[in-house]
Amino acid sequence: MSNNFTKSFAPTQKTALKRLPHRASYERRLIHRILDEALVCHVGFVDSGQPIVIPTAYGRRGDMLYLHGSIASRMLRALASGIQVCVTVTLLDGLVLARSAFHHSMNYRSVVVFGTASVVRNAAEKTRALRAFSEHIIPGRWADVRKPSAKEIKQTLVLRVPLEEASAKLRNGPPTDDEADYELRVWAGELPFRLMADAPISDPRLRRGVKVPKYAQNYGVQNRSKKIS
Amino acid sequence: MSNNFTKSFAPTQKTALKRLPHRASYERRLIHRILDEALVCHVGFVDSGQPIVIPTAYGRRGDMLYLHGSIASRMLRALASGIQVCVTVTLLDGLVLARSAFHHSMNYRSVVVFGTASVVRNAAEKTRALRAFSEHIIPGRWADVRKPSAKEIKQTLVLRVPLEEASAKLRNGPPTDDEADYELRVWAGELPFRLMADAPISDPRLRRGVKVPKYAQNYGVQNRSKKIS
Repeated sequence: MSNNFTKSFAPTQKTALKRLPHRASYERRLIHRILDEALVCHVGFVDSGQPIVIPTAYGRRGDMLYLHGSIASRMLRALASGIQVCVTVTLLDGLVLARSAFHHSMNYRSVVVFGTASVVRNAAEKTRALRAFSEHIIPGRWADVRKPSAKEIKQTLVLRVPLEEASAKLRNGPPTDDEADYELRVWAGELPFRLMADAPISDPRLRRGVKVPKYAQNYGVQNRSKKIS
Repeated sequence: MSNNFTKSFAPTQKTALKRLPHRASYERRLIHRILDEALVCHVGFVDSGQPIVIPTAYGRRGDMLYLHGSIASRMLRALASGIQVCVTVTLLDGLVLARSAFHHSMNYRSVVVFGTASVVRNAAEKTRALRAFSEHIIPGRWADVRKPSAKEIKQTLVLRVPLEEASAKLRNGPPTDDEADYELRVWAGELPFRLMADAPISDPRLRRGVKVPKYAQNYGVQNRSKKIS
């Protein structure tokens, strides 16, 4: 937590990449950017020795990652007990098509966070976290919706996972083929991927005359940087 | 493995959904379809008590899931030792925008597989698995590329995870709001997402006159069903 003003997270025994270390980064700004760009994380925890990986939404405020869900959620209740957690976020930026099957790859940016979760009990922090979720996923939405009631806030479990042991891993650019293979008349290159939002589908019970808000209409445009997560 | 010809996987203590059971499915065809549509899985395993979640590509043949990578990969070597693994695949189909912050959600289809991995040692099965990877990610590519040499096959670790304890979870359709909230003049509905492949980028060292193959040019069109994973 004392690293709020440093540019990088310190690599630890867990986060230091042994293989392909050139693909690793501990740069705070990059890690924040990947977390802000993706929409879903995969949360890993251990239950009676069994690893369990569950996809879920998340939010970020500074060096704090927030998870949330129903107080009835088994995963959240397990995490709330303070067990170790691994939160992984992956942006698939494209396919890397090499001349040889062997050198095919993917371009991606991922973040792995190790830590333990703790419960957000303070109602004000809870509301701020819920707002962070909403603004993370669809900026502008929070202003429009009915805000959570006291009862709804009570029914929601919000957990924080500090960004302390965090690392990014990335690959970009064209394939790397064996020197001899560059002679082959096989097409090689990158196939870039992008998040695409189709036209919004209005709720069948929508009140007459309510227009689709701009942030939903232009989701793909506004969030051009958003990639597949 | 004896369930090859049944329509569903049997729910187990691990895969039976306690909460929101209407979102769960054990239907084999649905599980296969989700696995075939997504491109990346998140593999969870435990190392000295610490859960670790790593994104990676995968392939499927029948009721067998294949993972692969370098023989130097820490994750693959850990899994090869026969420890428990959880493989999770998530397709994010869109955002669900409700009238209340509380009822916002996501439309998704996910699969969770529990099991243990074993090493594929037989060279023929290994090659079939590598071909399954390739055809899974970009159908048509395998025919064009230089196939793996004996040395490359030796350098590649291929693991199989049987689809025995597998379950799907899904949500689709419009939001569900509190009855009173349907009166609100707040836009509500779905924002559907789709995988979009931009124009292929040829390798800077591509030989003159080699054209972009159709399967790369029309990736988004051919794989219209592919969603964000």
